[in-house]
Amino acid sequence: MKELKNLSKQELESFLSEEEKKMNGYISENLSINMARGKPSPEQLDMSQKLFENAFKTTNYISREGIDTRNYGNMDGIDESKEFFAEMLSVPKENVIVGGNASLELMFDFISQCCVKGIGGCEPWLKQKDPKFIAIVPGYDRHFAITEYFGLKMINVPVYESGPDMDMLGEVIKDPSVKGMFCVPKYSNPDGFTYSDETVEAIAKMKPAAKDFRVIWDNAYYIHDLYDETEHLSNIFEEAKKYGNEDYFIEFASTSKVTFAGAGISCIVASDNNIAEIKSRMKVQIISYDKMNQLRHAIALPDMAAAREQMKREAAILRPKFKTVLEGLDKGLNGLGIAKWHDPKGGYFIGLRVMTGSASYAGELCKKAGLTLTKVGAAFPYNNDPDDMEIRIAPSYPSVEDLKKATEILTTAVRIAAARELLGK
Amino acid sequence: MKELKNLSKQELESFLSEEEKKMNGYISENLSINMARGKPSPEQLDMSQKLFENAFKTTNYISREGIDTRNYGNMDGIDESKEFFAEMLSVPKENVIVGGNASLELMFDFISQCCVKGIGGCEPWLKQKDPKFIAIVPGYDRHFAITEYFGLKMINVPVYESGPDMDMLGEVIKDPSVKGMFCVPKYSNPDGFTYSDETVEAIAKMKPAAKDFRVIWDNAYYIHDLYDETEHLSNIFEEAKKYGNEDYFIEFASTSKVTFAGAGISCIVASDNNIAEIKSRMKVQIISYDKMNQLRHAIALPDMAAAREQMKREAAILRPKFKTVLEGLDKGLNGLGIAKWHDPKGGYFIGLRVMTGSASYAGELCKKAGLTLTKVGAAFPYNNDPDDMEIRIAPSYPSVEDLKKATEILTTAVRIAAARELLGK
Repeated sequence: MKELKNLSKQELESFLSEEEKKMNGYISENLSINMARGKPSPEQLDMSQKLFENAFKTTNYISREGIDTRNYGNMDGIDESKEFFAEMLSVPKENVIVGGNASLELMFDFISQCCVKGIGGCEPWLKQKDPKFIAIVPGYDRHFAITEYFGLKMINVPVYESGPDMDMLGEVIKDPSVKGMFCVPKYSNPDGFTYSDETVEAIAKMKPAAKDFRVIWDNAYYIHDLYDETEHLSNIFEEAKKYGNEDYFIEFASTSKVTFAGAGISCIVASDNNIAEIKSRMKVQIISYDKMNQLRHAIALPDMAAAREQMKREAAILRPKFKTVLEGLDKGLNGLGIAKWHDPKGGYFIGLRVMTGSASYAGELCKKAGLTLTKVGAAFPYNNDPDDMEIRIAPSYPSVEDLKKATEILTTAVRIAAARELLGK
Repeated sequence: MKELKNLSKQELESFLSEEEKKMNGYISENLSINMARGKPSPEQLDMSQKLFENAFKTTNYISREGIDTRNYGNMDGIDESKEFFAEMLSVPKENVIVGGNASLELMFDFISQCCVKGIGGCEPWLKQKDPKFIAIVPGYDRHFAITEYFGLKMINVPVYESGPDMDMLGEVIKDPSVKGMFCVPKYSNPDGFTYSDETVEAIAKMKPAAKDFRVIWDNAYYIHDLYDETEHLSNIFEEAKKYGNEDYFIEFASTSKVTFAGAGISCIVASDNNIAEIKSRMKVQIISYDKMNQLRHAIALPDMAAAREQMKREAAILRPKFKTVLEGLDKGLNGLGIAKWHDPKGGYFIGLRVMTGSASYAGELCKKAGLTLTKVGAAFPYNNDPDDMEIRIAPSYPSVEDLKKATEILTTAVRIAAARELLGK
């Protein structure tokens, strides 16, 4: 098949007409498939439940340090859980705070702290003039929602396969009103990119004009490999240490996609200074997160070797799903010159970049056919994809059969939208 | 025994000398007893664990509405948990949001929301001039810590057996910069007072100058009776409705002292308007709290009848502890004219009001004898008890034997401190 842009107007009209016929067929099927969010499937959750069999059966809720996890106290978590995340992320356990079931909540709260009380001895962000935040785009909609909620004006910086555009980033951080950025450095949401060693080093050595600049290093998918080989991500704290920059970074992770999406455990990793500041807020905010659940996790996943085994089992469920979508994209879009995507080696998403100006229309068509995607535009601040080109695909929840159908519908929609765009419709 | 104030100087000196001898005896025993916090005892937690036997054994994590509690979603909680709190507090379940393991966190967050984003369509509290908050004193130290953290200047209003001083409250709320108050309306912390029907009605019909005035109705001990009879507390929302004042009230409760102190479930109850505003923040902040734990609670406590049975079992453990302390106070302080206390019918605390200017010294003596009390002064904002007279006793954690000893030490310390005060030492 020729690239669409090389078709004559007549060829294109005929192509469009064929595709629209197909789409009408899909619409008449009254389907209902949801690819909107990175939700684990019931099979994955069943597997986690099996992993917790002994944990759920335990009658001993005393931690190895003798802490009664059923009671109040021990604000920053039990030793077992600190050690688990310390091993996962190769950081000292003294720099780990264990949270509840949502790292998102911890991130929201850290931004809230910076906004209201300030960080690093500086004025609260909300008391400073026009505080801004960098949005690595395309990115995770919930990060942008937090930034928007607190009124931090976002500045887009694009992300490529090796990470954010470092030239642009280097320019943007010269402005002292730019206070930080969110990033997903491994298997990024939505594209599945992993920041190269060079990028991580370049980020680690940044000298932002704002002393209270903070990078939210959302390592949501650090151990979420689809294949036996992992993509290497440098340790941000080790890199930052070389430049005396540890205070600029706050790392977050969780077991939401290791154990239970709604009932895992989460963590904050930060420098001594930042940990002390975060704890000074926590001691007003909460007595402790759920330590019984922390202990259950320690029983189910005594160490990283156990976690890696679990991730292999998860990958075995996820791989065919990603494969189905990727084959469908290849079949439906390859060679047409109207879409690009990255074959992710981990994480929960595929970022499909379609012809400029055509993503929204494709999204609308999918909706008509009963296929729910993440809202088109959501990978950008203020739901505003300036080029109207990014579609996020979340293959984890539907069945392989549904994904096959969904990808047929999606690629048909993308073809139609591109043809219409080329025809000026 | 005569009241101390009626003793001659010589009698008082001799009294003091005897008491100090006793205290030195206690000090030489090298004891270590902690009465600082309202922590349930291991026996209470063991009982809760028994209550959860079936819940922990469950293999079905699907809620009655078909929600997979293991997965993301259902931000405001599962129906079972909403219904549980709705029944407990006699409110419609549509006005309930179910939270995580800490109602404290929910309160912190609500204050944070008001401070940063405002409530009821008004300017954020932190953007208004000198926002203030009412502190019902003596009160709960963690409430004051939240208020202080956000920089809301506190104005003390005293609480009596029937509730806050309504005359003073009526005056204070005429100032539009006064934004609200925390209160524990039943079995108050630390005194164990329950607001009378008249007080609740008077609070319900208040017309504060600030449209964004909010009362944090922390109903922490609503079902925490020590005896078969409960003290009646009117329903704040029913009362407020009569005056069109529902928006002024936000109620909080939890199962922290029903099931597990560190791993219960909590709730917010509020008017339609407030619920909508709170949800608009929540949807940015968290995907949901731990719904698996919500479902476990629904299995362990299918309804309020089950919860009441559980509270009777808890009371059977707590009653002898309260009795021991109250008998000790009676034995050690009655008739001396140097202390007052209320015999609480529920809750977790006894508030001991000693001779003006003597509480700190008594606290220091206790510390020397290895008895840890809640920091003297903590029942007041900024740790500043203006009369230096309130000591909070938390009888729940130590054994009856330890409590007997602890109360002997405490009353001795109170007698010494009073005698020294009278002697002008």
